[in-house]
Amino acid sequence: MELVRLKLVTIVAEAVLEHRLVEEIKRLGAKGYTLVDARGEGSRGLRTMDWEGKNIRLETIVSEEVALRILARLQEAYFPHYAVVAFVENVEVVRGDKYV
Amino acid sequence: MELVRLKLVTIVAEAVLEHRLVEEIKRLGAKGYTLVDARGEGSRGLRTMDWEGKNIRLETIVSEEVALRILARLQEAYFPHYAVVAFVENVEVVRGDKYV
Amino acid sequence: MELVRLKLVTIVAEAVLEHRLVEEIKRLGAKGYTLVDARGEGSRGLRTMDWEGKNIRLETIVSEEVALRILARLQEAYFPHYAVVAFVENVEVVRGDKYV
Repeated sequence: MELVRLKLVTIVAEAVLEHRLVEEIKRLGAKGYTLVDARGEGSRGLRTMDWEGKNIRLETIVSEEVALRILARLQEAYFPHYAVVAFVENVEVVRGDKYV
Repeated sequence: MELVRLKLVTIVAEAVLEHRLVEEIKRLGAKGYTLVDARGEGSRGLRTMDWEGKNIRLETIVSEEVALRILARLQEAYFPHYAVVAFVENVEVVRGDKYV
Repeated sequence: MELVRLKLVTIVAEAVLEHRLVEEIKRLGAKGYTLVDARGEGSRGLRTMDWEGKNIRLETIVSEEVALRILARLQEAYFPHYAVVAFVENVEVVRGDKYV
């Protein structure tokens, strides 16, 4: 069985951003995503204001190129204004052509 | 503290497959699992039919051997027929004997 | 874009432990966390008693030092008594200063 190495991008954000974030990642090249409801605490962007509330946890398997595009877009348009956490991990998948 | 390197296998699938997938991974050697309700979008197997709906996100920590067995079983019996995503990551755990 | 390498610590435990675990990880240095409701099966600590029920899945991005502190605390105070699974992964984040 051939395993393909791709990137798993996970984004945790306020639930109100769900629709916008899904549109963003699809526009940037994601072919699919998984979403779960979450809650949590963190520090809010540059304002270091605490927030706690209804969040989403959105994950998508993409190429490294698309992962970097998503992070750049978050940094440009979301991190300064919203409570958003994003992280990238290495994953191995079967049928890598599904994701790119 | 001694950390043991194992594999985290994550499977995202239609919720109707929950019981079957849990039985499969236990039969193939998984000693436990964590399950969360999810939703999402993706391309459906060879038919590239779009799907959107109630999903589960199932994860299990296993040896590399069991991880490969699970992926092989998914490829053989699920990927051609169902909307299933599976990926593998490296994790480190305390008390590695719990998982194998 | 500069990516910073940190640790993602994931803890799966009985839901009744939510408040205590959140306090523990914050006390040990975590700046934030994400929590989702989960269910599952596993073997319970040294007693290898089966358990199945309402769980939480708690994740936090921290430095390696804090990750090891959290695991040591779980090993000391939780693993012998509770159904707790914990694992550590490498992640890359933008704005690494948020997490340490």
